Amino acid sequence: MEVIRKVASESDHVTIGIGSAQYSHTKDNPFTAGERYLMIARTLKDEGIDNAFIIPIEDLNRYSVWVSQVETMCPPFSIVYSNNQYTRRLFYEAGYEIRNSPLYNRAEFSGTEVRQRILDEDDWRYLVPEKVAEVIDQIDGVSRIRELMGESPDGMQL
Amino acid sequence: MEVIRKVASESDHVTIGIGSAQYSHTKDNPFTAGERYLMIARTLKDEGIDNAFIIPIEDLNRYSVWVSQVETMCPPFSIVYSNNQYTRRLFYEAGYEIRNSPLYNRAEFSGTEVRQRILDEDDWRYLVPEKVAEVIDQIDGVSRIRELMGESPDGMQL
Amino acid sequence: MEVIRKVASESDHVTIGIGSAQYSHTKDNPFTAGERYLMIARTLKDEGIDNAFIIPIEDLNRYSVWVSQVETMCPPFSIVYSNNQYTRRLFYEAGYEIRNSPLYNRAEFSGTEVRQRILDEDDWRYLVPEKVAEVIDQIDGVSRIRELMGESPDGMQL
Amino acid sequence: MEVIRKVASESDHVTIGIGSAQYSHTKDNPFTAGERYLMIARTLKDEGIDNAFIIPIEDLNRYSVWVSQVETMCPPFSIVYSNNQYTRRLFYEAGYEIRNSPLYNRAEFSGTEVRQRILDEDDWRYLVPEKVAEVIDQIDGVSRIRELMGESPDGMQL
Amino acid sequence: MEVIRKVASESDHVTIGIGSAQYSHTKDNPFTAGERYLMIARTLKDEGIDNAFIIPIEDLNRYSVWVSQVETMCPPFSIVYSNNQYTRRLFYEAGYEIRNSPLYNRAEFSGTEVRQRILDEDDWRYLVPEKVAEVIDQIDGVSRIRELMGESPDGMQL
Amino acid sequence: MEVIRKVASESDHVTIGIGSAQYSHTKDNPFTAGERYLMIARTLKDEGIDNAFIIPIEDLNRYSVWVSQVETMCPPFSIVYSNNQYTRRLFYEAGYEIRNSPLYNRAEFSGTEVRQRILDEDDWRYLVPEKVAEVIDQIDGVSRIRELMGESPDGMQL
Repeated sequence: MEVIRKVASESDHVTIGIGSAQYSHTKDNPFTAGERYLMIARTLKDEGIDNAFIIPIEDLNRYSVWVSQVETMCPPFSIVYSNNQYTRRLFYEAGYEIRNSPLYNRAEFSGTEVRQRILDEDDWRYLVPEKVAEVIDQIDGVSRIRELMGESPDGMQL
Repeated sequence: MEVIRKVASESDHVTIGIGSAQYSHTKDNPFTAGERYLMIARTLKDEGIDNAFIIPIEDLNRYSVWVSQVETMCPPFSIVYSNNQYTRRLFYEAGYEIRNSPLYNRAEFSGTEVRQRILDEDDWRYLVPEKVAEVIDQIDGVSRIRELMGESPDGMQL
Repeated sequence: MEVIRKVASESDHVTIGIGSAQYSHTKDNPFTAGERYLMIARTLKDEGIDNAFIIPIEDLNRYSVWVSQVETMCPPFSIVYSNNQYTRRLFYEAGYEIRNSPLYNRAEFSGTEVRQRILDEDDWRYLVPEKVAEVIDQIDGVSRIRELMGESPDGMQL
Repeated sequence: MEVIRKVASESDHVTIGIGSAQYSHTKDNPFTAGERYLMIARTLKDEGIDNAFIIPIEDLNRYSVWVSQVETMCPPFSIVYSNNQYTRRLFYEAGYEIRNSPLYNRAEFSGTEVRQRILDEDDWRYLVPEKVAEVIDQIDGVSRIRELMGESPDGMQL
Repeated sequence: MEVIRKVASESDHVTIGIGSAQYSHTKDNPFTAGERYLMIARTLKDEGIDNAFIIPIEDLNRYSVWVSQVETMCPPFSIVYSNNQYTRRLFYEAGYEIRNSPLYNRAEFSGTEVRQRILDEDDWRYLVPEKVAEVIDQIDGVSRIRELMGESPDGMQL
Repeated sequence: MEVIRKVASESDHVTIGIGSAQYSHTKDNPFTAGERYLMIARTLKDEGIDNAFIIPIEDLNRYSVWVSQVETMCPPFSIVYSNNQYTRRLFYEAGYEIRNSPLYNRAEFSGTEVRQRILDEDDWRYLVPEKVAEVIDQIDGVSRIRELMGESPDGMQL
């Protein structure tokens, strides 16, 4: 939220891509794109940010056309914020200006950490915006994470 | 817009799906999902509608899982508005309440009509919201439609 | 049925492929692969044919690997029965023995004819095996065909 | 077989899904869907079970539409038997009744164990139904497993 | 050939893309990419052109990433020759210099014309380079075209 | 190169498949198919080998149709050279003659070794043909490999 708040205040608009939109119910992406959309939309409204576009983007699983896929799904943009080296490289090669996301405590404010705490029945709510916790409760997300993280999948290759 | 205005005023929120999101630069879908997103977002802002979600949705090209695909990409919803018989049937079989879009002049307010008028250099701007025309001008959409509609494609099967 | 009865009586086993298995709810393929499976399975049981394998096969939409796809999904086979020129050519090039399906009244006993009669509220039941009509009734197939055939689809490209 | 025998005797019919049907020649899925179909069909016939449907089902590799994919490929069903947590969760969220497969010795009666024994030239035949061993012999499955398990694949990403 | 000869003589190298590479055995693309590759490679050798790259390129069936797909599959290039309006528009929007192919008799020197003549048993050999006719004869292409063009396909949607 | 030189001198022609052609910008496949094509084409020219076909081949990620996919993309061939057990097994089952690549120092002349040396800033140029190093320099491949190998990707599943 800190990153988005900063970018939204400095720019005409900010586009938030929901990556890997076709995946859900996995350890890394327990929530559907629609559920993630709702978490973000409610939080932005709560924060009074009204110049953000939220866009679910399906991976095509071929990096070389990924920049094109993102350009197709999003309104025009000129600056890319990411701390991921792959994303940075691909958009850099395509000629975009790349900026680091402002610094924050990445170890704690990470999805991995939050999901682990939910599994361990530790406190996790203070790590996410209030509206995100609200949506997770509404969709019974805690029980989903606990069931899915408790066992390795078999019978389907993702 | 009349349909969306009515639904938005009667509901907690309305989700606008941008279908066939992976297609663009064709006669039927000349614009990318991102360009269509921008047209809708600017128009909603202009109209003061702030309880709408805009969601690009890629077709999976298998009807039987399409309802699931839409459910995955969108926040939860309970009523489906559509005048398209296919959409209505699929969501009806999945147990949704289906409502007709309120009546309007479908012959004139259709994408087909607008694109034909652009090709014929007839007046088309009065048929679309002001912000849509603005975006089409910004992305040089008129020249794209004229080029693409002037010839049958070959060399690629869509 | 006449074709299958003949082939089943002359062979160790017969494999019935349900092609285009991923499609349903279209004018040409109104029923899901599972619904078609049920129609065939019930009819075979009714006829006392117990050496038939029924296999839904998804199209890969690239003819050159289609023979491989069929070989992958089916138990080994050596003779191909089909009156379709494409299927015949592809399996012929792959070295299979091709046989014509025994003759029958193709104009009347065709899916197209049956679906048209359903749409026109003409008599269609005498054209299909009794168990097929039973399944169509159970899944409310008549209303699905009437709805889907009454209008051109839009918003999704198949 | 114990599970299927029990379910088949208690139900009108049982549907056996062959998952990951598009995969073969890998360490986890050495056999094609057609080969697996044959193993199951011959065993069922041998056991006198004649109310089972066998259905190869391709993974779509997006969990959120997987229940829909299974529903499309199979005749209607109401109860899901599985000990896999992912499958159980997805069908549970879709409203199905979930039952545990009856207990059996999962460590020994597992594909992994059988394939490892084949690789190690240990006795494996007593762990599978007689007809399964017969099919494996007919298709020279032992040599395939030994070749494929002896080396990591490279040059293709699955 | 005239187009390629001219471009090859004026450029450091020329890349010839074999589009729709995944398709074959259809009315429009009766030959596999490999067969088409062989026709072109033998003709180039015959003509003494040795600075051409031949690249089969699969369609992704989403125009918006097609330029990226072509860029990924081909060595770097800067000028695009095409008389197809779609190709021209997409590469123009991506910033490439577009040139018209030099003029030639498009009505006669077209694949459609050649295939029709093969079907009609008219003379077609004088319309293609000698090596192309040689490859068509080697792979029994005449009988394939006659079989495939004689009937509409059914049972598979392309 | 030693392998290709030997095969090219003994055969009418040799086809070099560029596998996993749709992947790039990953740790295992940092280069696009087009970049890999250029490295090979320039090296072959430098070596005076003019009877080789270079063909990018996209993985379909289903082994059972992979032989068909390769056959579709390549001119006809009869002998397969590979040291990879998977490739050998699949083409063996399809009836091809399989030959081992002639022996060479696989530990040192491996892509993995070269990429690791680039990352470690060790000498790597003597391990690849001169023209390959030239292309890597032209496309700034060293910086790409260093960036991509320095971090695990996240946000996209390959």
